[in-house]
Amino acid sequence: MFSNEMTELLNIKYPIIQAPMAGGITTSTLVAEVSNSGGLGMIGAGYMTPVQIREQIREIKKLTSNPFGINLFVPNEFRVTENEIKSSNQLLDPIRQQLHLPQQDNFEPPYFESVFEEFIQQIKVVMEEKIPICSFTFGIPSREWMTELKKSNIILIGTATTVTEAVENEKAGMDIVVVQGSEAGGHRGNFINRSQESSIGLMSLIPQVVDNVSIPVVAAGGIMDGRGLIASKCLGAMGVQMGTAFLTCIESGAHKVHKEAILHAKEDETILTRSFSGKWARGINNKFIIEMKKHEAFLPDFPIQNTLTQDIRKASILQNKQDFTPLWSGQSPRLAKNQTVESLIQTIIAEARKLISIEAR
Amino acid sequence: MFSNEMTELLNIKYPIIQAPMAGGITTSTLVAEVSNSGGLGMIGAGYMTPVQIREQIREIKKLTSNPFGINLFVPNEFRVTENEIKSSNQLLDPIRQQLHLPQQDNFEPPYFESVFEEFIQQIKVVMEEKIPICSFTFGIPSREWMTELKKSNIILIGTATTVTEAVENEKAGMDIVVVQGSEAGGHRGNFINRSQESSIGLMSLIPQVVDNVSIPVVAAGGIMDGRGLIASKCLGAMGVQMGTAFLTCIESGAHKVHKEAILHAKEDETILTRSFSGKWARGINNKFIIEMKKHEAFLPDFPIQNTLTQDIRKASILQNKQDFTPLWSGQSPRLAKNQTVESLIQTIIAEARKLISIEAR
Repeated sequence: MFSNEMTELLNIKYPIIQAPMAGGITTSTLVAEVSNSGGLGMIGAGYMTPVQIREQIREIKKLTSNPFGINLFVPNEFRVTENEIKSSNQLLDPIRQQLHLPQQDNFEPPYFESVFEEFIQQIKVVMEEKIPICSFTFGIPSREWMTELKKSNIILIGTATTVTEAVENEKAGMDIVVVQGSEAGGHRGNFINRSQESSIGLMSLIPQVVDNVSIPVVAAGGIMDGRGLIASKCLGAMGVQMGTAFLTCIESGAHKVHKEAILHAKEDETILTRSFSGKWARGINNKFIIEMKKHEAFLPDFPIQNTLTQDIRKASILQNKQDFTPLWSGQSPRLAKNQTVESLIQTIIAEARKLISIEAR
Repeated sequence: MFSNEMTELLNIKYPIIQAPMAGGITTSTLVAEVSNSGGLGMIGAGYMTPVQIREQIREIKKLTSNPFGINLFVPNEFRVTENEIKSSNQLLDPIRQQLHLPQQDNFEPPYFESVFEEFIQQIKVVMEEKIPICSFTFGIPSREWMTELKKSNIILIGTATTVTEAVENEKAGMDIVVVQGSEAGGHRGNFINRSQESSIGLMSLIPQVVDNVSIPVVAAGGIMDGRGLIASKCLGAMGVQMGTAFLTCIESGAHKVHKEAILHAKEDETILTRSFSGKWARGINNKFIIEMKKHEAFLPDFPIQNTLTQDIRKASILQNKQDFTPLWSGQSPRLAKNQTVESLIQTIIAEARKLISIEAR
């Protein structure tokens, strides 16, 4: 019932991928426990240095002998003016005051060249450490790097939010494509049309993508249990990638403030915002999002805005405040539980088996 | 496989409801053919006069002996100032010019009292004509009218876009609730939170609603084929309501311009707009939506804006122009076909049976 082309490619028992959530959520224990429970654990390495990546890969190898993967952010070009930084800081300074943080006067914006160089160094570590699976968000690496990765026998997973993006991933040589529905928490993976408006629900996205690509499709967005797994499979996906469901697990490194916010949220409390990072992302609505809302169209691009809000995000969570913390969540927070990874995966599989037997009656 | 509490309540063979699309789409032939093919045909009577409703019910009764239903719009209170009408007309007049229409100088806004009185007259016809099923959009009728309708043994269906709205429908005595996902084409059924932001994808919405109500749940939004039907059932719905899939059918009364637009559209070409009617609705992006976009937050409420744009919508379609026509569509236009209702329903049922047998392996 659960074995297919995708589970064979990834060499896993169940068609469940733990979403590679960046920012400290994917602890080595989380990743290893997912892989030990028959799914695919993934390191969310988007914001990690090459050194940190190497360390975590080695740590996880000690905790599991099953395959696990890693996710990298493909850098998008960005431009920024001093004025844009100044206006963004003018909006952020009153918030800094509320958090007892100093004003930011001499901000040094990151250069695209150095962001890109870091990305190449991340890829090199991935290849050197012989990690079997690597996924990408925000775009597709250049042909040159796709060839290098393939030479290293790494299974490559792309991310798409539309049919066109899925087709581009297939053309570029990805082995699998994750389709991210509008339900998904965290950053939107759009890389062709970068507006928020191409947010397509999974009920529409999965069948239209599978009709247009021949590589395995994995569904992501709002999937939390056996119902979501079997529904995704009926729509044509070979498996699912789940973020929020793993985020509230005991083994996840998400801060208590973040976990609690999700565990108490309702399905209509999340919103798309670009105020935290400069890229559209779905999280639980809070004071920061509300205060920045009318300016969000004019904020600097990712990763500039992300760097600008770094001190605020850190301080807010250290002070146990939901108000100025990005509370990334998909649209199914009512289905989130605080449980072990093993219990989550076992429950999904049991539910899925039961559902199929009921429908087949 | 297809018989359940919902099909028993509605006395239909297959758990498929044809969405009650307003504005001339639900011809008597469409409604009757759906019911004759084992689904539930529905009259989209939102904009119809009591006299027109009576005539159509009688016409359909001649074409089918199976049950069919009707949908009414519950009027929401609205307020409007002369200035708002003036500014909206200032935006619409250049469009009128392009369509060779006269400027609108002495517009008489509808009064809430008369809109409400019309609604009561619609309900009375529904009861007098002994139609077995009546659904509601944009709200829930008053307790008094719910009681009257129940006394007439009419099965009542409510519409919800969130868990809270579904719970309110159950509390009010609805027998069934249709949950409208963000994928859905046409008007959003939100009636508690009227902003567009509580647009929840079906993958999230269905399971969270079924966990919180005990009446049968019907899924609506982006569902076009057997995959969508079985996926919705796995998520906990007892059936589906499909709009776009029926809109492009041969029997539908949608204008050729509208059908053709859907048959050629891609999944990322629809957008939420309130420019046509004053209420958020999903349609294929076109010149009208783009030109009105930056003003849409300030346009008068439904039904004022709808009345203001009436001449434009009529002229645009009469001139075979997509540009200024509301091209309502869900997010799955790539799955739309121009076929007979019978063929659509038969194909869905065959696909659904096949899917279940594959998953059960």
